[in-house]
Amino acid sequence: MASASGVIRRLLAARTKTPAVLQYSLSRAFSTAFREERDTFGPMNVPADRYWGAQTQRSLQNFEIGGARERMPEQLIQAFGVLKKSAAKVNIEYGLDPTIGKAIIQAAQEVADGKLISHFPLVVWQTGSGTQTNMNANEVIANRAAEILGKKPGEKAVHPNDHVNKSQSSNDTFPTAMHIAAAVEINNRLLPKLQGLKDALAAKSDDFKHIVKIGRTHTQDAVPLTLGQEFSGYTTQQVKYGIDRVQATLPHLYQLAQGGTAVGTGLNTKRGFDVKIADAVAIETSLPFVTAENKFEALAAHDAFVETSGALNTVAVSLMKIANDIRFLGSGPRCGLGELLLPENEPGSSIMPGKVNPTQCEALTMVCAQVIGNHVAITVGGSNGHFELNVFKPLLANSLLQSLRLLGDAAESFRKNCVVGIRANEGRIAQLVHESLMLVTALNPKIGYDKAAAVAKKAHKEGTTLKDAALKLEVLTAKEFEELVVPEKMIGPSD
Amino acid sequence: MASASGVIRRLLAARTKTPAVLQYSLSRAFSTAFREERDTFGPMNVPADRYWGAQTQRSLQNFEIGGARERMPEQLIQAFGVLKKSAAKVNIEYGLDPTIGKAIIQAAQEVADGKLISHFPLVVWQTGSGTQTNMNANEVIANRAAEILGKKPGEKAVHPNDHVNKSQSSNDTFPTAMHIAAAVEINNRLLPKLQGLKDALAAKSDDFKHIVKIGRTHTQDAVPLTLGQEFSGYTTQQVKYGIDRVQATLPHLYQLAQGGTAVGTGLNTKRGFDVKIADAVAIETSLPFVTAENKFEALAAHDAFVETSGALNTVAVSLMKIANDIRFLGSGPRCGLGELLLPENEPGSSIMPGKVNPTQCEALTMVCAQVIGNHVAITVGGSNGHFELNVFKPLLANSLLQSLRLLGDAAESFRKNCVVGIRANEGRIAQLVHESLMLVTALNPKIGYDKAAAVAKKAHKEGTTLKDAALKLEVLTAKEFEELVVPEKMIGPSD
Amino acid sequence: MASASGVIRRLLAARTKTPAVLQYSLSRAFSTAFREERDTFGPMNVPADRYWGAQTQRSLQNFEIGGARERMPEQLIQAFGVLKKSAAKVNIEYGLDPTIGKAIIQAAQEVADGKLISHFPLVVWQTGSGTQTNMNANEVIANRAAEILGKKPGEKAVHPNDHVNKSQSSNDTFPTAMHIAAAVEINNRLLPKLQGLKDALAAKSDDFKHIVKIGRTHTQDAVPLTLGQEFSGYTTQQVKYGIDRVQATLPHLYQLAQGGTAVGTGLNTKRGFDVKIADAVAIETSLPFVTAENKFEALAAHDAFVETSGALNTVAVSLMKIANDIRFLGSGPRCGLGELLLPENEPGSSIMPGKVNPTQCEALTMVCAQVIGNHVAITVGGSNGHFELNVFKPLLANSLLQSLRLLGDAAESFRKNCVVGIRANEGRIAQLVHESLMLVTALNPKIGYDKAAAVAKKAHKEGTTLKDAALKLEVLTAKEFEELVVPEKMIGPSD
Amino acid sequence: MASASGVIRRLLAARTKTPAVLQYSLSRAFSTAFREERDTFGPMNVPADRYWGAQTQRSLQNFEIGGARERMPEQLIQAFGVLKKSAAKVNIEYGLDPTIGKAIIQAAQEVADGKLISHFPLVVWQTGSGTQTNMNANEVIANRAAEILGKKPGEKAVHPNDHVNKSQSSNDTFPTAMHIAAAVEINNRLLPKLQGLKDALAAKSDDFKHIVKIGRTHTQDAVPLTLGQEFSGYTTQQVKYGIDRVQATLPHLYQLAQGGTAVGTGLNTKRGFDVKIADAVAIETSLPFVTAENKFEALAAHDAFVETSGALNTVAVSLMKIANDIRFLGSGPRCGLGELLLPENEPGSSIMPGKVNPTQCEALTMVCAQVIGNHVAITVGGSNGHFELNVFKPLLANSLLQSLRLLGDAAESFRKNCVVGIRANEGRIAQLVHESLMLVTALNPKIGYDKAAAVAKKAHKEGTTLKDAALKLEVLTAKEFEELVVPEKMIGPSD
Repeated sequence: MASASGVIRRLLAARTKTPAVLQYSLSRAFSTAFREERDTFGPMNVPADRYWGAQTQRSLQNFEIGGARERMPEQLIQAFGVLKKSAAKVNIEYGLDPTIGKAIIQAAQEVADGKLISHFPLVVWQTGSGTQTNMNANEVIANRAAEILGKKPGEKAVHPNDHVNKSQSSNDTFPTAMHIAAAVEINNRLLPKLQGLKDALAAKSDDFKHIVKIGRTHTQDAVPLTLGQEFSGYTTQQVKYGIDRVQATLPHLYQLAQGGTAVGTGLNTKRGFDVKIADAVAIETSLPFVTAENKFEALAAHDAFVETSGALNTVAVSLMKIANDIRFLGSGPRCGLGELLLPENEPGSSIMPGKVNPTQCEALTMVCAQVIGNHVAITVGGSNGHFELNVFKPLLANSLLQSLRLLGDAAESFRKNCVVGIRANEGRIAQLVHESLMLVTALNPKIGYDKAAAVAKKAHKEGTTLKDAALKLEVLTAKEFEELVVPEKMIGPSD
Repeated sequence: MASASGVIRRLLAARTKTPAVLQYSLSRAFSTAFREERDTFGPMNVPADRYWGAQTQRSLQNFEIGGARERMPEQLIQAFGVLKKSAAKVNIEYGLDPTIGKAIIQAAQEVADGKLISHFPLVVWQTGSGTQTNMNANEVIANRAAEILGKKPGEKAVHPNDHVNKSQSSNDTFPTAMHIAAAVEINNRLLPKLQGLKDALAAKSDDFKHIVKIGRTHTQDAVPLTLGQEFSGYTTQQVKYGIDRVQATLPHLYQLAQGGTAVGTGLNTKRGFDVKIADAVAIETSLPFVTAENKFEALAAHDAFVETSGALNTVAVSLMKIANDIRFLGSGPRCGLGELLLPENEPGSSIMPGKVNPTQCEALTMVCAQVIGNHVAITVGGSNGHFELNVFKPLLANSLLQSLRLLGDAAESFRKNCVVGIRANEGRIAQLVHESLMLVTALNPKIGYDKAAAVAKKAHKEGTTLKDAALKLEVLTAKEFEELVVPEKMIGPSD
Repeated sequence: MASASGVIRRLLAARTKTPAVLQYSLSRAFSTAFREERDTFGPMNVPADRYWGAQTQRSLQNFEIGGARERMPEQLIQAFGVLKKSAAKVNIEYGLDPTIGKAIIQAAQEVADGKLISHFPLVVWQTGSGTQTNMNANEVIANRAAEILGKKPGEKAVHPNDHVNKSQSSNDTFPTAMHIAAAVEINNRLLPKLQGLKDALAAKSDDFKHIVKIGRTHTQDAVPLTLGQEFSGYTTQQVKYGIDRVQATLPHLYQLAQGGTAVGTGLNTKRGFDVKIADAVAIETSLPFVTAENKFEALAAHDAFVETSGALNTVAVSLMKIANDIRFLGSGPRCGLGELLLPENEPGSSIMPGKVNPTQCEALTMVCAQVIGNHVAITVGGSNGHFELNVFKPLLANSLLQSLRLLGDAAESFRKNCVVGIRANEGRIAQLVHESLMLVTALNPKIGYDKAAAVAKKAHKEGTTLKDAALKLEVLTAKEFEELVVPEKMIGPSD
Repeated sequence: MASASGVIRRLLAARTKTPAVLQYSLSRAFSTAFREERDTFGPMNVPADRYWGAQTQRSLQNFEIGGARERMPEQLIQAFGVLKKSAAKVNIEYGLDPTIGKAIIQAAQEVADGKLISHFPLVVWQTGSGTQTNMNANEVIANRAAEILGKKPGEKAVHPNDHVNKSQSSNDTFPTAMHIAAAVEINNRLLPKLQGLKDALAAKSDDFKHIVKIGRTHTQDAVPLTLGQEFSGYTTQQVKYGIDRVQATLPHLYQLAQGGTAVGTGLNTKRGFDVKIADAVAIETSLPFVTAENKFEALAAHDAFVETSGALNTVAVSLMKIANDIRFLGSGPRCGLGELLLPENEPGSSIMPGKVNPTQCEALTMVCAQVIGNHVAITVGGSNGHFELNVFKPLLANSLLQSLRLLGDAAESFRKNCVVGIRANEGRIAQLVHESLMLVTALNPKIGYDKAAAVAKKAHKEGTTLKDAALKLEVLTAKEFEELVVPEKMIGPSD
């Protein structure tokens, strides 16, 4: 017992500190040396080897929520790099000292390239406008730009607010960065991966187009179709339309809040700033960003994110259906439906030797469940804006970016490690379809529903074939039966 | 105590039977007389004064779930009328006896007109394909058509399966009726009502365009904007885009499953049936319905419904924001923000005399919460299809139609009973904006962020005006202050 | 086309008015005669044959949202009857004229008995405190009580506010009625129905305790268990714990807000009123209601409802699992798993003769999806209270009462029409279990995991039995194999 | 443009690889040297400096989903350490070679202590049973134990399956680890933090008990209460009951699946193993773990997790209400309600100098939204188990552990950085309450509701005091008015 309580003490202690591996930690020093930084609240010590300033440090200390896993997503940080670079370019046009401006551009490019990610320690669960991440970007870029100019960090030779954040507010930069990050992630990850999955399913649909199999409705035996037809529902419609659904949300994501500043009016910007900065971001990203049609909405609501999340929710629903079908059709090997043979990627069980499981379906459906859950989080966050600002921005950014990444990655993993390797178990498929009582449906036009039902019920009750039952009931001849009840003829309308 | 237990006994008893007012009841006789109807399971007694047959009666008895409030929505029943009429028309082309066909057309028209709604007693919570509601439609139309032809109900002179349901399956009729009902409801109720709301908000935005008010971010005082600008976010973007979002889902709703029959292959239809019936429905409804691009998906999944629900979810999020803003801006009359004066429609309190409440905002936000909840129900239902059939169809139909109706009605009620009557409390608005410390933001370009912050902090701490603080801190002259800090100049970019 | 546009015109017209069958309508006259009623807003015409007054009529006209299906649930109206009766009793103790008080008691009893339900026309989507339904109850009871005393309605011989609502506010009566209705519904409908389901599943678990079958993990073949063990998971744990979970929420539901009046302070009540009225309600209902521990929370939040809904959500999750298992285990008859034989309650298809479907599973899982969706609606509503009042009360009441009723009814329907009739398909079950490769797991302790895996893989690859494979690989003798690989010995730990 | 496309190329490229900071990467080598490991699928190269084996490596390559932020939560890994240590102890009792057993115990302790976390690279989105994380634990512990015994990794001197996983299956270990991790997190983090928050709110409630303020219902002015009463709703009921709700879920979490092995039967364990291992875990953790009442449910469903998540959902709803109230009551400083003064922790705006925002409320409400969303993910995952196994286990573990951690951390941050520093703005509060028209409610018992309403309406219309209006309407004398309308007398029932 003595040692036991020692263990629990250690276990419990372990909970209160970030584990060893994650010691690139939140509120803890990044180096043993410090320098002083100042903001309007006064001085703060920050790690000497980090570019961030007083406001970032304050946030580190004020929001110890969730640890390192809960940091702002890197896509968002990189988007801030793109944005701050674009802002500096436009600000030079409007009079910012070009020496300072160019240094900002260089520093911001490093952020866009992900090189300074270790200088962005803040978590998602901070101020609801993301102010502190905007300031983190301002401070890091200011100090790095100062360094480029041969100045010391903390001395504000390049000022985080007056220079880097010039003509900007957290209230318009953060939603702008949200839109940039989401649009890039969609274009770069999600859509190509979904396209790949669609193509892989389409190839299977084509491969399987001559394989006639039993259909199942209500999970029960029904009339036949081809395996290719079954897969066509997945590919032609579900994944293809899913791609369309996601794409249809892009025009609203391409609208940038930048230029609205604090409340949407554009106070402290010059006329035209908003259009110019959208153009600059478009050039940086090669995506057709424009300035938002209405900046009041662009700050106060995030309907575009809710809309995009809704598209992802629909995609998740589609993929859940597809993955469920595939795992059930591949169930077995001997006591399930057994129509599909799924690739064997790894040992399936730590206790049952030789077991192989539809693990890619499982990873994918778990991702779908998370996307569905994130959609509710985004809906709740999106619905709770007040007046000129929605203050659930970091939540919205984090949840949507997670959904985007997980869906994209899981679609690709599913394609690569499952779909392309699926084979049809043709012997099993043929056996099942020929045993099915629902082939009786082919008799409806000839003998009517009521008599056809009697045939099926008799065969079911007596465990015989439909043909036996039909002949015993004298509803048609053997020849008629054989001409009508042919699975291969039952897979489309008649002429 | 004796009487008390009598009460509870009665109260409890009341729970187990349908209350008096709802005695148009589910499994109970609709008349004291009965006739016999038959299906493949055998004979059933049905109320003599109702057109339905054995399968409907069986369902009444097998699914006593929820009572009369849980009946299939009337829009869906009427859509079945449209569909069965269209099917009869097309079936005549393909050889259905025109005498029978015309009688079916007449009877189906009565269903489409809502005249036979009392013959549709089934609840939502039945077979997941809606088979029994399809059969309810088949049976009612068959018996009514037989009556038109001078035959008796129950004798199947017009056969519910072989004639009314000819070339159809529940699996394609029910989703077809779902799409018809939803598309009609969107076109006829939701979109016009949202349009009305958009226009009403736009009119207010225009009325209020010269009223400069304090902005609020994080619920805290921020820089000014006009009340017209604030309302422009609601109308130009949120409601307008909401309309766009709903409209964007229509093309998928216009795709009809009809012609897929049991599993999507179109078995027991003639080639071309699917296109012809979509045309017929389009003519009946004056809406551009077409046959589904892929009928396997159209039966096995309902992504189109999940997608539409997603659009409604976004609209709900938008309306939640707008209604919340309006009630908070209208809070008071003396201890709230008090910037808006909302119409007084009814006494607000049964205990506090003279109280007036933002009741239309409350009804609307409750509707939004239900729409958000229904969206999850639809998501769960949509994700759980298996193989060739999704068997959450009645749930999907019911939830979406409820969301559509509630959103449409609530938008109209909100417009009519709230928005059009909103007035600005201009005196209060002017008082607040001039007191705000955040006007200091106008000084940023002149004196820099850090000094401006010092001014605001000093004024806040000492309870003075910004001007006093600025002069005491000697950061600029009175004249400079007066030229810069003018709310009316702070509502847009500078030149 | 001419007739077509006529149809669509009629169809569209039908959408804008309540359909014929629902003409017991909302804002429309209930009779052709009217009388005048007054409230603090002035006079209103109300139908002469209805007891309601001006405020109810106003609400009818101000909230045309959703039509008759969206009326306040009858359980809530009956709970108002219980409450108003209790209040009158206590008010007599505190000085209310006993003549008036007794008339109120008699009228309120009629409401509690459901006799006056046709006098409660208001919809859920009204004022968020339910004020108008409280006033509907006050007005109906006042006019009916006046009638009992030989007075005319509308003359306020019995006053809806000063007499019927004495010492009360909508803000405490509505949540009190919510709690009463929910607690009665739980005790009277849900718990007995779940208990019935538990018992039916337990009986099956017992019936099936000697039937050894293949287990399935990841939907794939796994090691054996008995069918009784499989059902024990449903009954012993899932449904039984579900009952416990719902019961555990009752103590908070038994806490009544009554006596808090407008904001929780109890203004305009006499000391002790809150305790006395909780006692009175307890006597009326034979349920252990008490006054709320903290009345500020009881008005401003509805955490107790969110909590109860959470319990229902868990029950829905459990029932979804059970119903899914049963439909998959009962899939077939010839091309599915086929281990269970489900009762045949109705024809399963309008096109496939003789088809029988797991329709009770479908109704139940649809109900579960709605309960899960309602839980989100309740969560959103519950999270949006402000200051002294949550104004999503009617939504919360309606959603929870719907979830309670649907779950209770569906559990009973599932029990009665499915579970009690389930039979095991013993021949099929035996065949499957003996074919399973996963019986190889029994060899682990003898030959180790790696060799056992080799045996299973060889048998799978070559399509042979495990025994054949084991002997060929020479990992053990035939005798050893036969002693170890016995499904009947694999259903528990070894000694 | 040339440089622009370079940027986008870099930006896009950055998306396809894990960013620099996260280069402790998934499928990439952890060292430049490798060793060979084997499983039943054959050999695999693994990084020479890592303890994991072939199955872990396979999973790294097969599930490239989400990157490093999506790794299995560290609490779960540590719980695996506790479990494997306990298993080794019990296995020694049942005959495991004590030399091997002791080495396992030592290695497992290191896992429990978090020392080997860098050897657990797998993501959440893997096999739905968590098999690969169980194997990761088995492999790391086996290789580390071998090292302790002086053997080389990969040679299986200590075998991951036969020794470390002895008598276990992923299907029972993973849910066991889930329960251990959740129960420890609740006891160690969430409950103490909620308790701290409750105490802090209670202290404020006590501090504020004499401050009479305006109540607000429907966001509108209502009758008075004390600020202490308002806070009592938060503390006494909402947070206190929240603690109760979470605690009430612990008994089900304390039930461990261990001993059920693959399908719940306990195959390949010895009788009594399940009880002994639960005891061992209880000793390790000092928490009252017991063996699960029914192991079939414990593998096939995770109702206990859904239940716990439901409790967290209710807590989130409560905290959302509290945080919303506090931010609105603290709105201002000059144009809001201004009743509370919240601590100023950081500069609030990058553009508006001197702005201070309720940032802790924002972080907390964002966390609440995520918890609500995770609850839906958990509900979806929990409802989708099939047959003997729910395969959404890693999702369930991850979502619940995230919700637990975020709620705990955010409650503490909110307490420490907001609640303890809240001050009442007493001057503002007094001013508002005395202006309120709703004080008229005190007149009801004296002059009746209708006359009181007339007084309030007159005062509102004419902008005068209630007293003026009352005297003009001659409904009572000045003296009577002054005696009755006293906010301080309106905060409770009368005697």
